[in-house]
Amino acid sequence: MKKHSIPGISFSSVSADVRGKGEDRLDMGLIFCHGLSAAAGIFTTNSMAAAPVRLCRERLVSGGVRAVLVNSGNANAMTGEEGYEDALALCGSAAELLDVPEESVIFCSTGVIGERLPVHRMGEALPRLTGNLSEGGAGPFSEAILTTDTCTKIAGQLAEVSEGTASLLGIAKGAGMIAPKMATMLAFIMTDADIEPDVLRDMLREVNQETFDAITVDGDTSTNDTVVFISSGAGPVVRNKQDIQAVSAALKDVCLDLAEQIVSDAEGATRVVQIQVDGAADDDQARSAARAVAESLLVKTAFAAADPNWGRIAAAVGYSGAEASSDMLSLSIGDVQVLDCGRLVDGYDEDMAAEQMGQKRYIVSISLGNGPGSASMLTTDLTEEYVRINCEYRS
Amino acid sequence: MKKHSIPGISFSSVSADVRGKGEDRLDMGLIFCHGLSAAAGIFTTNSMAAAPVRLCRERLVSGGVRAVLVNSGNANAMTGEEGYEDALALCGSAAELLDVPEESVIFCSTGVIGERLPVHRMGEALPRLTGNLSEGGAGPFSEAILTTDTCTKIAGQLAEVSEGTASLLGIAKGAGMIAPKMATMLAFIMTDADIEPDVLRDMLREVNQETFDAITVDGDTSTNDTVVFISSGAGPVVRNKQDIQAVSAALKDVCLDLAEQIVSDAEGATRVVQIQVDGAADDDQARSAARAVAESLLVKTAFAAADPNWGRIAAAVGYSGAEASSDMLSLSIGDVQVLDCGRLVDGYDEDMAAEQMGQKRYIVSISLGNGPGSASMLTTDLTEEYVRINCEYRS
Repeated sequence: MKKHSIPGISFSSVSADVRGKGEDRLDMGLIFCHGLSAAAGIFTTNSMAAAPVRLCRERLVSGGVRAVLVNSGNANAMTGEEGYEDALALCGSAAELLDVPEESVIFCSTGVIGERLPVHRMGEALPRLTGNLSEGGAGPFSEAILTTDTCTKIAGQLAEVSEGTASLLGIAKGAGMIAPKMATMLAFIMTDADIEPDVLRDMLREVNQETFDAITVDGDTSTNDTVVFISSGAGPVVRNKQDIQAVSAALKDVCLDLAEQIVSDAEGATRVVQIQVDGAADDDQARSAARAVAESLLVKTAFAAADPNWGRIAAAVGYSGAEASSDMLSLSIGDVQVLDCGRLVDGYDEDMAAEQMGQKRYIVSISLGNGPGSASMLTTDLTEEYVRINCEYRS
Repeated sequence: MKKHSIPGISFSSVSADVRGKGEDRLDMGLIFCHGLSAAAGIFTTNSMAAAPVRLCRERLVSGGVRAVLVNSGNANAMTGEEGYEDALALCGSAAELLDVPEESVIFCSTGVIGERLPVHRMGEALPRLTGNLSEGGAGPFSEAILTTDTCTKIAGQLAEVSEGTASLLGIAKGAGMIAPKMATMLAFIMTDADIEPDVLRDMLREVNQETFDAITVDGDTSTNDTVVFISSGAGPVVRNKQDIQAVSAALKDVCLDLAEQIVSDAEGATRVVQIQVDGAADDDQARSAARAVAESLLVKTAFAAADPNWGRIAAAVGYSGAEASSDMLSLSIGDVQVLDCGRLVDGYDEDMAAEQMGQKRYIVSISLGNGPGSASMLTTDLTEEYVRINCEYRS
């Protein structure tokens, strides 16, 4: 696989000084499809969804896209009808420059909420952006969409299908305001496989629940979260069930990889912890329990201190709303079993548990002993650095 | 009113070295009723409720208490049947020393989860505890129940009723793991008014929702939360509606005062912020919106930085589940109106909003423009100090 490129798709990025601070960082990006491409999207559930989310939702109903415009530094959220008009105008200008139908251009924004986009500066940057497209431009594009992220997030995967090999490429951003039911994250996943729009949509929805919807940093669901899945159709045709499953599996690998990269880059985080819940009455209850543990400030500070304060984990399960009782709860930290049906296991060694928690990534396994339901969620520790970053972050 | 005392009730406290660190701090307390007293309790909703909570629930069904035993430093939670037996044994010993029926002694614990109580050391301390009772001992008692608290929490109030003046005294602890639906908090409210058990229970339930259930520090609901309301009956008889309302109003004052003291002492907090939501479809939706804002890490870090990043507040309302739309949202920070129906108000001055947020206590008012529902919640800012405390706090 030729890394970081997808047949039929080009990338571009420029510095438009979106934040108006005279910065030279890349902050506008463009994904361009050489032909009309099938696309599906999943968006934030936040009722204050930003103007660009509204625009994407409207335009992805028809299913085809030619271009995705992206900016960082300003979310164009809580900007009312004017914010929507700003997004429309910039899409219109980009469409003109690219000579594609206006409705085939979608727009994603990320950054500070409540400020109008600098339409003039961004408009001036558009000719440079549209004039700078290249099939190998995914790297700089992945930089242009970052906000508090400390690194770019790219994942690639191949899928063997009847007609040959399909390529998948995913590019994401996100480091905070990351919560189940979507996060302050943008993710663009592209494939050259020729997939029908309905199939594309079903695939994305299914994979999303186990990947981007199963990570949390701070429990805050953003106004701008967007995952877009684009099929350029320049590669092998995918129609039969087996081929669809192969692409779906590759899509899941890409999304899991990006989800893990997002959590690893979480603001101020030093560790990634997987919360695995089994034995719940059903999967929904397992998810509730996993989420309560993953979002508990007391659990997350214990993670930061590598302190096997398992009582905080048990307490979080207890208030999660999942059916649970203390005498059925089993718990392991990494390889070290702590509780077996509510009792500390014989020979439990707190120092060994602390050693597990010193790792950069480990699993906390929780069994409720109630049924077949299970769920997994990725979270991070909560450090003083998280607080410092979020006290300082603003335009 | 003779401060910090209630006719018919005595207090005691000793150092029992509950944590086994050879510390000299007060960590066991006792409330003793001179006669059989009516009592009502409200307990944590956590399904991992601690052994002492189980014991209190069982014994308060009958309604009468003679003594409340309390310890700090160990929550006796997640300790299984043995933990329950430990609590029973200590209550039994206390009952014997006090010459009261065993079933009239209840027990409350707070501290680390998952460790057995040092029954031997605590048993040895009991004779000193029961031998040390005095009507004026509320002050040291209020110290003995503290964990990470930096100060004692006491509130008093008088209620004028037909037969004279009733006194109310409240003593509480709590500084973290404070969330709606009860918190890691213990609160003991005592009155000399002679009130029937059913009335006592109804009063407490009603007042609790607007006071202890309307504060949050970190969204973590503890295994041990308990509020107990005791009527010694040594004062005026309260039977008619008007008198009941007078005592109820005084009870609310006491509980609000304690709730505010708990939030003010929240771990690492530098400010108390009241989140007032109006215009929700109903009160439940208003509570959801208030809680989402009050518990958002991004909002709470903005509070710490005195940064009027109102977009984070709008985003939290947006994911709260309350019906809301960005073009109906109005928002004020202290005296400064920020949004009017989704639009920044003319002449909005960010520096003035920041000035409001520099205060020790202020109100964020949110209107959803949807209906008559309203709710209020007290929260704090989230500082690096909170993280530091919770990384360090353990036996």
